[in-house]
Amino acid sequence: MTSQAAATAIPDVQGSPDDRHIAIDKVGVKDVKHPFKLRTPEGGEIATVATISMYVSLPHHQKGTHMSRFMEVLGQHKDALRPDEVGAIAQEIRERLGACEAHLEIRFPYFITKHAPVTGAVGLLDCEAGFEVTATPTGVEMSMSVRAPATSLCPCSKEISARGAHNQRCDIEAQVWTTESIWIEELVEILESVASCPVYPVLKRADEKFVTEAAFDNPKFVEDTVRDLAMRLDKDDRIFKYRITSENYESIHNHNAYAEIAREKGN
Amino acid sequence: MTSQAAATAIPDVQGSPDDRHIAIDKVGVKDVKHPFKLRTPEGGEIATVATISMYVSLPHHQKGTHMSRFMEVLGQHKDALRPDEVGAIAQEIRERLGACEAHLEIRFPYFITKHAPVTGAVGLLDCEAGFEVTATPTGVEMSMSVRAPATSLCPCSKEISARGAHNQRCDIEAQVWTTESIWIEELVEILESVASCPVYPVLKRADEKFVTEAAFDNPKFVEDTVRDLAMRLDKDDRIFKYRITSENYESIHNHNAYAEIAREKGN
Amino acid sequence: MTSQAAATAIPDVQGSPDDRHIAIDKVGVKDVKHPFKLRTPEGGEIATVATISMYVSLPHHQKGTHMSRFMEVLGQHKDALRPDEVGAIAQEIRERLGACEAHLEIRFPYFITKHAPVTGAVGLLDCEAGFEVTATPTGVEMSMSVRAPATSLCPCSKEISARGAHNQRCDIEAQVWTTESIWIEELVEILESVASCPVYPVLKRADEKFVTEAAFDNPKFVEDTVRDLAMRLDKDDRIFKYRITSENYESIHNHNAYAEIAREKGN
Amino acid sequence: MTSQAAATAIPDVQGSPDDRHIAIDKVGVKDVKHPFKLRTPEGGEIATVATISMYVSLPHHQKGTHMSRFMEVLGQHKDALRPDEVGAIAQEIRERLGACEAHLEIRFPYFITKHAPVTGAVGLLDCEAGFEVTATPTGVEMSMSVRAPATSLCPCSKEISARGAHNQRCDIEAQVWTTESIWIEELVEILESVASCPVYPVLKRADEKFVTEAAFDNPKFVEDTVRDLAMRLDKDDRIFKYRITSENYESIHNHNAYAEIAREKGN
Repeated sequence: MTSQAAATAIPDVQGSPDDRHIAIDKVGVKDVKHPFKLRTPEGGEIATVATISMYVSLPHHQKGTHMSRFMEVLGQHKDALRPDEVGAIAQEIRERLGACEAHLEIRFPYFITKHAPVTGAVGLLDCEAGFEVTATPTGVEMSMSVRAPATSLCPCSKEISARGAHNQRCDIEAQVWTTESIWIEELVEILESVASCPVYPVLKRADEKFVTEAAFDNPKFVEDTVRDLAMRLDKDDRIFKYRITSENYESIHNHNAYAEIAREKGN
Repeated sequence: MTSQAAATAIPDVQGSPDDRHIAIDKVGVKDVKHPFKLRTPEGGEIATVATISMYVSLPHHQKGTHMSRFMEVLGQHKDALRPDEVGAIAQEIRERLGACEAHLEIRFPYFITKHAPVTGAVGLLDCEAGFEVTATPTGVEMSMSVRAPATSLCPCSKEISARGAHNQRCDIEAQVWTTESIWIEELVEILESVASCPVYPVLKRADEKFVTEAAFDNPKFVEDTVRDLAMRLDKDDRIFKYRITSENYESIHNHNAYAEIAREKGN
Repeated sequence: MTSQAAATAIPDVQGSPDDRHIAIDKVGVKDVKHPFKLRTPEGGEIATVATISMYVSLPHHQKGTHMSRFMEVLGQHKDALRPDEVGAIAQEIRERLGACEAHLEIRFPYFITKHAPVTGAVGLLDCEAGFEVTATPTGVEMSMSVRAPATSLCPCSKEISARGAHNQRCDIEAQVWTTESIWIEELVEILESVASCPVYPVLKRADEKFVTEAAFDNPKFVEDTVRDLAMRLDKDDRIFKYRITSENYESIHNHNAYAEIAREKGN
Repeated sequence: MTSQAAATAIPDVQGSPDDRHIAIDKVGVKDVKHPFKLRTPEGGEIATVATISMYVSLPHHQKGTHMSRFMEVLGQHKDALRPDEVGAIAQEIRERLGACEAHLEIRFPYFITKHAPVTGAVGLLDCEAGFEVTATPTGVEMSMSVRAPATSLCPCSKEISARGAHNQRCDIEAQVWTTESIWIEELVEILESVASCPVYPVLKRADEKFVTEAAFDNPKFVEDTVRDLAMRLDKDDRIFKYRITSENYESIHNHNAYAEIAREKGN
């Protein structure tokens, strides 16, 4: 008897009927770590590690889903998963699991090559990016998220103080629904453009002078950051829906300032 | 000149007008730690530490909110905040900030006195609970969340194996919208009742035998846990809306099994 | 048969002999959450939630320790554990477990009432504190840790820039071994005194002006922070050993600056 | 004037003398994320993301270290850092910073291709690995850490119960100092061999039956896990020093069981 035959002989508890008449919105595997590989605009490649959750809807009459199939689909990409496969994988999971809907959530660190603003000293800046996908019989809906670190400098502190101004690292995030794909690098640039100043991996003294003065000359409340970002995304016709946030790790408090705007265009 | 007068003379940058015509959904302070005190059903009190986020909506014409006022309102409760003050605080924040809406999110560890099932050995079980509040001119909407640890034992593993069955700690969570307040203790009991077995802080050998056999006799898929919980909440007339999840820290994998149901009754 | 008798009849697997001839340095329970209550210098009380780990050494000839006894000892303090009980509990665990050594590690958030520097606006600042205890047949050795948030402003950025200076939140921590007990409040004050400026829960505009200028007038590298702290602790005769660190959440980078000094006086 | 010349003209605050007479044990950058690439025993390659901390010692007479140089050294490996470069990088940092000692700490997720024990179904198991390096004028000392998830099944629960036995995921970790390099894969196999059973990414029903029974037939206390691991490492002549731990996420409690052994051979 082959192991396949042995497996067949084993009772399928998950496949048995269920009479509680309760459908489940999402069931599956959460927080799986997996290699993830993305092309860069320059034609290179970035290899990273994604945290992946995969769910399906379960109809009221079915006792359980088959958890191992999620991992089998992922296991077919054991060298690395790629963004252009994400939609197809959501559909494959939907079909392999016999489900009406499938959801994928993928998050990963991503690296941007940054040159210091004056000396050009080079290094990698780590951001965080992700995809969310919903697959249904009629197609796939997908959004991309990018979270970039930056500097925020307080307009009030600058205005009222005789010298200096408090400033701090902030994390700016945009989740966007688009009609065509956008490079992570492009979205990071947009996020950085609405901060007081970008942050950099390597800064020599001439660069540190530059970013200190640049941030001082460009103060932004957390409210300004999300508003300026909303204006940028409002003008971008590729984006029809977005949710944006900024979180400032205030240097004068032990708590964070936070702002959020969600918008669906045409509404 | 008093310091109050000095403060008055300082320009109010946040209060200046804004012409970007972009309203902000939520702006405020995030992840503030603060003492929190709750009454217990026995008439005692549990002191804990909450993580609190407080936001308001900001109209398009106002440049910034006044972050310090959130903390001032909280500072008036510096000995400890209580659940029955949460709604009033949301309204106070809404009014002090001149906002249309205010949101509060509060999470805290909570302790349940548990007696071991056979020997009665006593100890404290830590759960996690929370409140979410939205205040508007017409009133306050509030939900309570409770997350309890428990044991889940896999029905498939039990059915197909000659001996044993894989089991693991799981976290079961319910967010409920209710017509009257419910004790955290009561909701924890409901959550534990749909697991394979509760977990305990202290278990002597006679207790360990009991819980091992109890879990083995009561296998539950993550799907069963959320379905049985949905049935319990469906029958409870005090609850008109809920969102429930369970996450199993699978003992045979390095990833978690997860299920989720959200329901609004009358829909 | 009483449940006690039933328990006695159950085999004691942990108590059986072991012939691998390998002693275990530490065995016990990790990351237990438990209420913790501390007196304040003003005669009040602060209730918080501790994360506690409790270990004993295990001789080579004993198969296992009795995990439930750790939790039983803790369960006797179910209203709340107190700092002055920590040493006695370590000894009690050592004796109940029949061990040569017992170790306790306790960490908890702690709250300091802070008044804004100009307006006096009041609020609670959350720090983190802890105790580490080792009990042996000859006595108890104990250290206290306090970690306080503060502001650091970069001397290089200030010196080289035409205007402004980058600054950020930092976390300064001291673990101290002392000949007499020191209030957490006192240690927090020492930690804050070596930063560019303390942080505050509530700052009105006059206060924000004050702290912005104070930090600008008092720039500190992460190296300065730990050195100035070392000088303070070197002069304090109650402290015979310390380990101090500072971590700056750099506002111009996405990584942190860090410095550390450990010292045992008389060496 | 070139930007290099501009940089030279800017005052070097860090390079100025310090008269506090306090040397610093470690100063540098903490928690930098960076791509990391490792060869596999089969001749392939695994790309992952490391979290890196880099420190140097600072003599008492020097005001500050030059933080940007740490990042410049890392920036020279912007495609990815490799394990065989780690020692050389520690020495390069030591020399570039003019320090007596340099320390590197590197942690990263690592993926092991695992075949299910019966059906051979394939997937990736995520572990965590790392390196710690200290560079001095006389050479480099380096250790490797590997942390692998596994299943532990309680011998006491099995012995005293009429049916079943509680079991859970555990994390077993070994930090080893060796005379020659060891593959991560080899160390993971050793760690898995001392657990009740390995965990797997994909398990079909025949596999689930296998691992359930295998764990039931091989019960292990957390004490057994670290002792059996110590015996394995004691016999391995390539390893002259180790520190091993196991943490069991108990399925019957909301806290973890933990054990630890540290040993230097020849002592």
